[in-house]
Amino acid sequence: MTTVQHPETDLPVLKKLRARGIWEGRQRTRLTVRQFADFATGEPAAIGGDDSAPTPMELVLAALAGCLAVVIETVATERGITVRSLELTSEATIDTRGFAGVPGVRPHFASADTRVEINLASTAAHLADLRVEVERRCPALNLFRDAGVDVRVTWVAR
Amino acid sequence: MTTVQHPETDLPVLKKLRARGIWEGRQRTRLTVRQFADFATGEPAAIGGDDSAPTPMELVLAALAGCLAVVIETVATERGITVRSLELTSEATIDTRGFAGVPGVRPHFASADTRVEINLASTAAHLADLRVEVERRCPALNLFRDAGVDVRVTWVAR
Repeated sequence: MTTVQHPETDLPVLKKLRARGIWEGRQRTRLTVRQFADFATGEPAAIGGDDSAPTPMELVLAALAGCLAVVIETVATERGITVRSLELTSEATIDTRGFAGVPGVRPHFASADTRVEINLASTAAHLADLRVEVERRCPALNLFRDAGVDVRVTWVAR
Repeated sequence: MTTVQHPETDLPVLKKLRARGIWEGRQRTRLTVRQFADFATGEPAAIGGDDSAPTPMELVLAALAGCLAVVIETVATERGITVRSLELTSEATIDTRGFAGVPGVRPHFASADTRVEINLASTAAHLADLRVEVERRCPALNLFRDAGVDVRVTWVAR
């Protein structure tokens, strides 16, 4: 992961990401990102796999939860707000006809709902402000949104 | 993961996916998908993390490689084509100004290029056919494409 810095703020500041995959057969792919080589994607038996790892789209959905957490911590730190606890549950639907090849059906997510249960050492007004800023800046959430996925985030103060 | 089957082919066949995340502080989130609870997302020190896991967007990029592999194996099986080996390298760029809050800059991928190195027990014509069908049906690739990411897949016969 390399960040190319530009002094002018109107120019892109491009971070480069890289991932490698080696297919192991039976729908399993061993994945490597930088020094991290201990994860994989797989598929259940219905798709010809051995169900030994999350599916690729389950991995994307899990990354959505992780990404929201990163942006929550980042914005909270900027605001001087302490996050005491944070748990996220992301649920999504995929219309499998797209993967099966039916024309006109998009093969990725139809919907993605995330429940954010958060405990802040702060007021409800701070949560409302945090929420707007996080949803505006979260990379994964906006990937889903820009792709036309019906995206919802439900915030619950704990 | 549950699949709701409909006998009519014109109705959605919805698969439900679910992921959980528990924030552990210092930009690290422990993730769980079904029985898989051994992975996490993190961030390098520049974002306040301990660099103990791939970042969320690195996980999404790795899932793109895994997803292409799933669809390649699936379509090859449908066509009666044997895949002997398959390796994938996905590279992407993100303009970090979006994450930093600069208005008008999308916070997710600007570009995503994947190199697919594949050895088929088959002819070049079969690879050309496989390629078109895989790119049409791959869930993750179409998530990127539908989000307006500049997506490229380079196919190399081995």
